[in-house]
Amino acid sequence: MARIDITVSEVGPRDGLQSIDRVVDLETKKAWIAAEAAAGVPEIEVGSFVNYKLLPQMADTAELVAFACGIDGLTIAALVPNARGAEAALAAGAHKISIPVSASETHSLKNVRRTHAQMIEEVRAIRALVDAKPEGERPYFEAGIATAFGCTIEGHVPLDTVTRLAEELIAAGAEEVGLSDTTGYANPRMIRDRIRAVHRTVGADKLTGVHLHNTRGLGLANAAAALEEGITTLDSSLGGLGGCPFAPGASGNIVTEDLVFMLEAMGLKTGIDLDHLMQVRELLMAGIPDEPIYGFLPDAGLPLGWSDERPDAA
Amino acid sequence: MARIDITVSEVGPRDGLQSIDRVVDLETKKAWIAAEAAAGVPEIEVGSFVNYKLLPQMADTAELVAFACGIDGLTIAALVPNARGAEAALAAGAHKISIPVSASETHSLKNVRRTHAQMIEEVRAIRALVDAKPEGERPYFEAGIATAFGCTIEGHVPLDTVTRLAEELIAAGAEEVGLSDTTGYANPRMIRDRIRAVHRTVGADKLTGVHLHNTRGLGLANAAAALEEGITTLDSSLGGLGGCPFAPGASGNIVTEDLVFMLEAMGLKTGIDLDHLMQVRELLMAGIPDEPIYGFLPDAGLPLGWSDERPDAA
Repeated sequence: MARIDITVSEVGPRDGLQSIDRVVDLETKKAWIAAEAAAGVPEIEVGSFVNYKLLPQMADTAELVAFACGIDGLTIAALVPNARGAEAALAAGAHKISIPVSASETHSLKNVRRTHAQMIEEVRAIRALVDAKPEGERPYFEAGIATAFGCTIEGHVPLDTVTRLAEELIAAGAEEVGLSDTTGYANPRMIRDRIRAVHRTVGADKLTGVHLHNTRGLGLANAAAALEEGITTLDSSLGGLGGCPFAPGASGNIVTEDLVFMLEAMGLKTGIDLDHLMQVRELLMAGIPDEPIYGFLPDAGLPLGWSDERPDAA
Repeated sequence: MARIDITVSEVGPRDGLQSIDRVVDLETKKAWIAAEAAAGVPEIEVGSFVNYKLLPQMADTAELVAFACGIDGLTIAALVPNARGAEAALAAGAHKISIPVSASETHSLKNVRRTHAQMIEEVRAIRALVDAKPEGERPYFEAGIATAFGCTIEGHVPLDTVTRLAEELIAAGAEEVGLSDTTGYANPRMIRDRIRAVHRTVGADKLTGVHLHNTRGLGLANAAAALEEGITTLDSSLGGLGGCPFAPGASGNIVTEDLVFMLEAMGLKTGIDLDHLMQVRELLMAGIPDEPIYGFLPDAGLPLGWSDERPDAA
């Protein structure tokens, strides 16, 4: 397998699709996942084990996990909001499960009707479920700290709320925490400061990934800042799917195409073939027509001489 | 005057307007410049002293310089393609003049029909013109190295072409060089590497500003990288005016609103009031209707609690 410096984790089938009203059929999702894996994307969050009455877009997550398990070399991630969801994810065979825990307790109460203490209990329960599996069948279990850079309800989220939560999540049995800029409030300085603080608190090996949104256009600047702090996994969404349709510029996740371009241009290997990835974008647009799709690179194209050696760009 | 950490230099009236077909009337330009200065923008490139037959959009540059000279505290910059343009800029009373010199000689020949050697002669001639003015009336004279990160005709532009050109431009009498990502080919690593190399060659005080485009979405990531290398002046264009109308995502200059947001969010003072700047955007849209305008912040709005103290974001 080719060298990979930075893992780009595609979250479009989960975060992108759960942000749009439309329910995309299983075959379209399968084709998308298979095509991205074929383009070299090493990890895909295929769905969320939520209450399907609330999020019908995610009703086929178990089938998607089972399908994706047939793709050689792909890490299959799934979101789980609680222990019940984790149970389903374990049964389906996900390689990696992630529970979002909001640093803003107000946001947590509004979103999942649970306090921090209750969420920590869920993490403990999930740890027990994971440990009950035979070794070798246990998924990697992480907790994503949502609203880690600010909250649309609380506004400023104090840094020590984030570091304390990180500590509690690790103590409760998460193998790792991630930092999520759910609201697009982060900036490069805050990214560096908060990653450093969490690294100091729980250790650098316990925070290796961030989940960024491009709401205010700083997504890639924040990603570049995260790289400087040693982050090695970055979430993104093909075509920025799920960006707010009412505010064309206020997109959701950072765009996979642009992120991969930035990383590869910086000489960081992602294992992803950009030309191939652009074709997957076409497939996505055909499969989910009328849904707005974002990204700068697809409009501008690759720089002249892209495939040549780039002696001092790399 | 308020503390300014980073100078945001508005180039929309020059780079934005010269990129669109429409010729905007003098009064609209005056209102725009006055409004941006009132919002706290410390420096504005009001136009270019070019051949007005080729660029009728710039025909009123001398009048704009004269008008802007009446605005207290504003630094008035103008682009000059050659010594003849510099003569006009000096007569008009610009505070700062900038000659673009393309690192790609092919681009230089195509753009201004001059070799590097011929451009160096122009710089020498401009130096003589500046020196002929009485002390205290001399504008600041810089040379902007265009295509410093790659060229749409030559592709890769070797780093030593850039450092050698920087050295020659300073030797010929430019007080400073700037690096311009004319083509949107730069990435954060390249930005850092090339700024460092030029700093090593001519001294850090001889390169304090960069001119970035957002063609492939990396504009703000590149700006943040430039800050890390000690850059203190960043060019940008209100609403990203002048972005390619055929490729909505492939905009031109980085967007002033988004740049100022990033800087202020990072705790770097720009002297610019963001709410006020958003009103100038409205004015621009009203003054130049039908012209596409970009930016993420205007769609998403400022984060909740923006005007409060931001203890660890600053």
